[in-house]
Amino acid sequence: MPRKVKWVYRFGGRRTEGGAKMRDLLGGKGANLAEMCRLKLPVPPGFTITTEACAEFYKRDAAYPPDLQKQVREALRKLEKRAKRRFGDRKNPLLLSVRSGARVSMPGMMDTILNLGLNDETTGALAERVQDKRFAYDSYRRFIQLYADVVLGMDRDLFEAMIETHKAKRGIRLDTEMSGEDWEELSALFKEKLRAEIGEAFPQQAEAQLWGAIGAVFQSWNNRRARDYRRLHAISDDWGTAVNVQAMVFGNMGERSATGVAFTRDPSTGEKIFFGEYLMNAQGEDIVAGLRTPHPLTEEARAKSGAKAEEEALSLEELMPEIFGELLSFSAFLEKHYRDMQDLEFTIEEGKLWLLQTRSGKRSAAAAVRIAIEMASEGLISQREAVLRVEPNGLDQLLHARLDPKAKRDLLTKGLPASPGAASGEAVFSPDKAQALKEQGRRVILVRAETNPEDIHGMHAAQGVATARGGMTSHAAVVARGMGKPCVSGAAAMRIDREGGLLRVGARLVREGDLITIDGGTGEIMLGAVPEIKPEISGDFGALMSWADKYRRLGVRANAETAADVEMALSFGAEGIGLCRTEHMFFNEERIAVMREMILAADSEARQQALEKLLPYQREDFVQILQKMEGRPVTIRLLDPPLHEFLPRGAEIAPLARRLRVSEEALKRRMARMAEANPMLGHRGCRLGITYPEIYEMQARAIFEAAHRVKRKGGTDCAVEIMIPLIMMEAELSFLKSRIETVAASVAESLGQPPRFRIGTMIELPRAALEAEKIALSADFFSFGTNDLTQTVFGISRDDAGAFMKFYEEQGLWDRDPFITLDASGVGALIGMAAEKARRARPAMTLGLCGEHGGDPDSIALCERLSLDYVSCSPYRIPIARLAAAQAALREGRR
Amino acid sequence: MPRKVKWVYRFGGRRTEGGAKMRDLLGGKGANLAEMCRLKLPVPPGFTITTEACAEFYKRDAAYPPDLQKQVREALRKLEKRAKRRFGDRKNPLLLSVRSGARVSMPGMMDTILNLGLNDETTGALAERVQDKRFAYDSYRRFIQLYADVVLGMDRDLFEAMIETHKAKRGIRLDTEMSGEDWEELSALFKEKLRAEIGEAFPQQAEAQLWGAIGAVFQSWNNRRARDYRRLHAISDDWGTAVNVQAMVFGNMGERSATGVAFTRDPSTGEKIFFGEYLMNAQGEDIVAGLRTPHPLTEEARAKSGAKAEEEALSLEELMPEIFGELLSFSAFLEKHYRDMQDLEFTIEEGKLWLLQTRSGKRSAAAAVRIAIEMASEGLISQREAVLRVEPNGLDQLLHARLDPKAKRDLLTKGLPASPGAASGEAVFSPDKAQALKEQGRRVILVRAETNPEDIHGMHAAQGVATARGGMTSHAAVVARGMGKPCVSGAAAMRIDREGGLLRVGARLVREGDLITIDGGTGEIMLGAVPEIKPEISGDFGALMSWADKYRRLGVRANAETAADVEMALSFGAEGIGLCRTEHMFFNEERIAVMREMILAADSEARQQALEKLLPYQREDFVQILQKMEGRPVTIRLLDPPLHEFLPRGAEIAPLARRLRVSEEALKRRMARMAEANPMLGHRGCRLGITYPEIYEMQARAIFEAAHRVKRKGGTDCAVEIMIPLIMMEAELSFLKSRIETVAASVAESLGQPPRFRIGTMIELPRAALEAEKIALSADFFSFGTNDLTQTVFGISRDDAGAFMKFYEEQGLWDRDPFITLDASGVGALIGMAAEKARRARPAMTLGLCGEHGGDPDSIALCERLSLDYVSCSPYRIPIARLAAAQAALREGRR
Repeated sequence: MPRKVKWVYRFGGRRTEGGAKMRDLLGGKGANLAEMCRLKLPVPPGFTITTEACAEFYKRDAAYPPDLQKQVREALRKLEKRAKRRFGDRKNPLLLSVRSGARVSMPGMMDTILNLGLNDETTGALAERVQDKRFAYDSYRRFIQLYADVVLGMDRDLFEAMIETHKAKRGIRLDTEMSGEDWEELSALFKEKLRAEIGEAFPQQAEAQLWGAIGAVFQSWNNRRARDYRRLHAISDDWGTAVNVQAMVFGNMGERSATGVAFTRDPSTGEKIFFGEYLMNAQGEDIVAGLRTPHPLTEEARAKSGAKAEEEALSLEELMPEIFGELLSFSAFLEKHYRDMQDLEFTIEEGKLWLLQTRSGKRSAAAAVRIAIEMASEGLISQREAVLRVEPNGLDQLLHARLDPKAKRDLLTKGLPASPGAASGEAVFSPDKAQALKEQGRRVILVRAETNPEDIHGMHAAQGVATARGGMTSHAAVVARGMGKPCVSGAAAMRIDREGGLLRVGARLVREGDLITIDGGTGEIMLGAVPEIKPEISGDFGALMSWADKYRRLGVRANAETAADVEMALSFGAEGIGLCRTEHMFFNEERIAVMREMILAADSEARQQALEKLLPYQREDFVQILQKMEGRPVTIRLLDPPLHEFLPRGAEIAPLARRLRVSEEALKRRMARMAEANPMLGHRGCRLGITYPEIYEMQARAIFEAAHRVKRKGGTDCAVEIMIPLIMMEAELSFLKSRIETVAASVAESLGQPPRFRIGTMIELPRAALEAEKIALSADFFSFGTNDLTQTVFGISRDDAGAFMKFYEEQGLWDRDPFITLDASGVGALIGMAAEKARRARPAMTLGLCGEHGGDPDSIALCERLSLDYVSCSPYRIPIARLAAAQAALREGRR
Repeated sequence: MPRKVKWVYRFGGRRTEGGAKMRDLLGGKGANLAEMCRLKLPVPPGFTITTEACAEFYKRDAAYPPDLQKQVREALRKLEKRAKRRFGDRKNPLLLSVRSGARVSMPGMMDTILNLGLNDETTGALAERVQDKRFAYDSYRRFIQLYADVVLGMDRDLFEAMIETHKAKRGIRLDTEMSGEDWEELSALFKEKLRAEIGEAFPQQAEAQLWGAIGAVFQSWNNRRARDYRRLHAISDDWGTAVNVQAMVFGNMGERSATGVAFTRDPSTGEKIFFGEYLMNAQGEDIVAGLRTPHPLTEEARAKSGAKAEEEALSLEELMPEIFGELLSFSAFLEKHYRDMQDLEFTIEEGKLWLLQTRSGKRSAAAAVRIAIEMASEGLISQREAVLRVEPNGLDQLLHARLDPKAKRDLLTKGLPASPGAASGEAVFSPDKAQALKEQGRRVILVRAETNPEDIHGMHAAQGVATARGGMTSHAAVVARGMGKPCVSGAAAMRIDREGGLLRVGARLVREGDLITIDGGTGEIMLGAVPEIKPEISGDFGALMSWADKYRRLGVRANAETAADVEMALSFGAEGIGLCRTEHMFFNEERIAVMREMILAADSEARQQALEKLLPYQREDFVQILQKMEGRPVTIRLLDPPLHEFLPRGAEIAPLARRLRVSEEALKRRMARMAEANPMLGHRGCRLGITYPEIYEMQARAIFEAAHRVKRKGGTDCAVEIMIPLIMMEAELSFLKSRIETVAASVAESLGQPPRFRIGTMIELPRAALEAEKIALSADFFSFGTNDLTQTVFGISRDDAGAFMKFYEEQGLWDRDPFITLDASGVGALIGMAAEKARRARPAMTLGLCGEHGGDPDSIALCERLSLDYVSCSPYRIPIARLAAAQAALREGRR
């Protein structure tokens, strides 16, 4: 015989079998109900069917485990005794609520069935007992509706239509006008309809109702929405949900009854005030449905809201001061007990307070920070705990403007939330227009089919960017995040007619110059200017950051190359620059012309001449950056993208041909020869440095001369790190290294001072990772370029992934977009292997990561596990990275 | 004090210090000279300076190791004693030859300096001794010329000009008309010129001459040509060359003197006949220079050549029968001793035979096969040795037509030798034209800027293909190799005017219809039709293959999909099909239209309709193949390339639009939406199967139904393996596997017989290799797709590599093109890791390789080391693969 498994845990009454620590087995809700019972708080008694029972149910192909029925029946008998009512009894029926409750709160699963146990007979008994027929039949018809929908799978709209018909017939407008007889009549009609629709009678037998509800909760674990939610939140499908069966209490039993929710602190600001809402003579769902406006719990809140006390909107504090006092003290007790801000549900049944749920309250990012800091100051939690309490990604909200949630919005379309923040401005469809209007002091939103490197000046000029194509990691998204500007990408419904100055979404038109608003946090694009709320960075934020810095082991650097980015990065606490992309420096109008001269040079000599013109620009860029960084490490990546990215298009070709003194035809031919089938895998990165050594030599010279100038001016010794991109084998690195060292020697000769520098490489191709041991011998540092590494390991071009990635997500083929969160078992494994090889070859090796992943908390946790030295991310993500790094170190037990 | 190193090994005389086994230390030439001395064969005495001395010379930055001079001087003293002459002596001077000799024969290094020791005085003494002033001064001037060129670095043309001037002055036409006085006079002029040009006197001191020559040999190890050769043949730069110093013997001392070369078997046919040539009164270089025509050694050869015995062209056999007999017996003895065909150099000095060199003779591929088989039959070597004796790549020659080496050629231009064989035909510039002419029974060569999948029918129709762009692994090259057709790719000088029907190379014109010839083994493109020699496959070839099969462990399969390819593969001994590319089946005119319908279908239903039209085509293809393969395994890869490869271009668009009943504009827009930035990393492979499951379902159905028909007709149970391309994670494989299994079940239901099949995957993305353990649980087999794996591991698109790969080769950044020979330390390491993981997860797993590398001997050796189960290659490379696999197994000691 198999071991006897305990599937059911009772709570309330003399014996409570569960507790807060049994969350995995009883679910969050069940564990907390048991815990409150142990704490002798007033909780309606009941029992919890374990998550294991649910898992077993799936193992048995939707059959209940043996012995479950017996255990439920026993628990029910004991509950009846305690409640002094009998389940299904014709006179004094016990009514139940049935709710799901997994380890973690999970929207999408079945939530609650109330009033279970009502049937044609017990409803009459209930009406009798409470002397309120309307209450009883309203409860009954609600139960039928919910049960038919959730358990029997009937379309709920059918019942709503019947109610409307009934009202019309009776000339009634509001539900509240319906009488007990009306509801009784409708209940009967509902049951008929149900039989007609699904060929089954509404179960009159209470126990059959209960098993139907339990099965529905179990099934709801595996419905589409729940599975999607689990996938998005990396929750295991194996956990299962618990089922909580509890004696009903009624907040709608008259004027001494009420229902409400309470927070121990303000969930949107974090302020330490008791906060909540309630409704007289109502059930919980009435608050949710929003038909009646709930009232504040406290007198202070009521006063603040401007409502007058003489109106019906009395606070609970005034109306039921004793019960309010009880609620307040229970709340304070629970917060202390759980050491976190609590979100409670309560019901007052004829003057008696019942607690139906307590849990850690959801809160805004600002509140999370404030609560964590204040609880640590109060001594309730430690600093470490405070650091672990704040969700790093939430900080993004604090650093960007957001739309006033109360403002009206006229939604035009939706795309992907590609870069957080919100902004309004005139819609413009070309980067030049954006720049021109910006120079007139106007605010613009750049709207493009997609962006490319030549749009950068327009993106700089704009308040935000919206594109019709491209994903979360498209050019527009990556660049906008780098700039800290809001961006909505891939809003596929947009049809842009650039020539005509028109944007079409379905039948709606936006003309160039019309105001639009984008919300990069939600992906929404709206017509008109929606008012924004500017970010405010509080002292608590600073405190949290300084605590995080105390616990983190990973360094945090920034990906930055413009003066503005560098300043932003420093203000957010960057400890260095981990990726300075030199190609971004060549896109402004003046320089791009010289760059093109260089690229299209007929021979090495002409190329050299063009490079000499570029040298002073580059040098000045580096002087700026090195000066600002005051001796912190600055990792400068030499030219990386395929040269044809810099080539002119359309109308730009003719003037360039004149400048180069060749025919347009000849220029086009030369450019055509540079076209590539797969530029991502083509002539780029160090391959450029190897075929045209003079390019990297110029860049190295600019770096060394800049470092020299900065030192001469300010005395700071610059910590320059020259980074060579796209290395696939050691031979490339030695080849380039010796050339850079030659430049260093020549600069030292002319300037009298040998520059201080290190040379390292991006590890962004699988082969480099596989040969890391050998490459490490020639490199002072590695920086894992996880954007390209993810592309090559997966064989996916980010630019082209749109066509199939969406389908992969829909089919649940991957949990996470590997371009957002580092793929641990593929890319991560390869990085781990390379890091180990590198450290074996050269123990003092610095290992960093500078892809988009450097600002993603889960990826940062992986970097901590892989013992990298630092991550580098866009300036706006630095606070997130600092916090995530601290949490990772604490979780790994490294601090 | 450092260990005393022995730098010098003597040979000849009483004590010979070296031997055949000391090839690494003494070089091939030195080791064999010593060996011949040990065998008491007549070898002029001398000594060898070791390769270690050369290596040491480089370690010391071109300084001789200590003690070398002393050891050379001692060896020289002993040589003088033995030769009874003194080096530099005014009366009886010892003259020396100095030759380089590395472990393996290496063209590009300095070869020989003769007559060393001659100076103004010793030349006179020599003239006196041999009573031949002309001989002495001719020798002297030759020595000066060679020494000035090789040791002192003077331009050799300067001396040639002086000789011409002298002849003109004296009214002489031929060198043979020059007298001793003429050469004496010129010797003096040469020395003056030398001083004028390089400011240095010609060294008169014999020992100084010797050290100059030794230094020049050492230096020649590192000249450009030698380094290039080493790089191409994977020879280590560290080995160094030996220097052989030997007493001179003279074949030009009158009518009883001669010089010649002999082979123990015919090096071009392998026939066991003594074979060679000689010249009376000549030095070795006279044979090389080609001014006089050498005569056959044997009477039989002379008779065969048609020369009459009474002419001066007497055979050595007739002229000096005793010496001939001696030579014949020495040769036979050496062949037996070395157990290989020997190539000997000999000199007869006044009636005395001297052997100057013996080595394994170079031979044609046909000769290599015949010699190996015959020697094994003679019992001289074992079957294993015979298998190891033949260079697998050489077999290619035997399987393809080649140009008659004696025919005249009018070279137009040169490209890359992309697919072996030679062919002539009318030049055509479009695939349709090729097909049209072919149908008229005409032979054509398809000349294209580059080819793409739509050219396939033209390639099929053509005798061979030439392209202006693309490398060894371009589309044209890969497809032509697959078809076994000759191809020259990347002949960049070709300018093709397709409209005008013209091909331009510089100033030369080829009109459509003009005859041209291509040689895919050399890359040459010639005007006119150069006569070909058809391949003949001998019985020896069959014997070699059957021996190879005895020793190999690796299976050999073919990459094939057409009936012709499959037959070819079977005739070459394929044990199965390792890669049947279903996409190649869609390119003929009839099918491509339906394929395009499918691709451009507006919805799933329209796609389904098009697929239903494709189903019978596919099924019939598979029936053909499965029937021919008679139960051998057939690995069918489901659709792999990006769909837009199938889209129409140019003039094909309008008719397709009509067929699809959409406007041309709409069709173009639809096609534009399918364009990809990096198609290689885009929507292809199993990504197509996942987004459009109906495509793979149709293919699976076609396979199962075909297998059923074949079984019903012939009773053969087909061994079908369905291979899913471009898997990056297990989830993809399970997703598709379950769909294919559903199709299998449905076919089983309608046909009453469950199909027998296995499902596996290509491993061609790094991530799949990294996750092999997990993927293996869902796969019956893996086939490493090393083309794409190399592309992704290196981050190189083969199509775009041309722009920089050449530079990498020139700079010596890589030894081998990783697209030809599998990169052992990157791609190979990853394959090894994946193979190990897969075997751990599923020990019975079949592991194969189906990239281009499957036909490359070095890559096959790596597959053997990695313990894969089979390789798959294009039909024409199957014999190569069988032999290479056997050699690898023997070398690894696995058989």
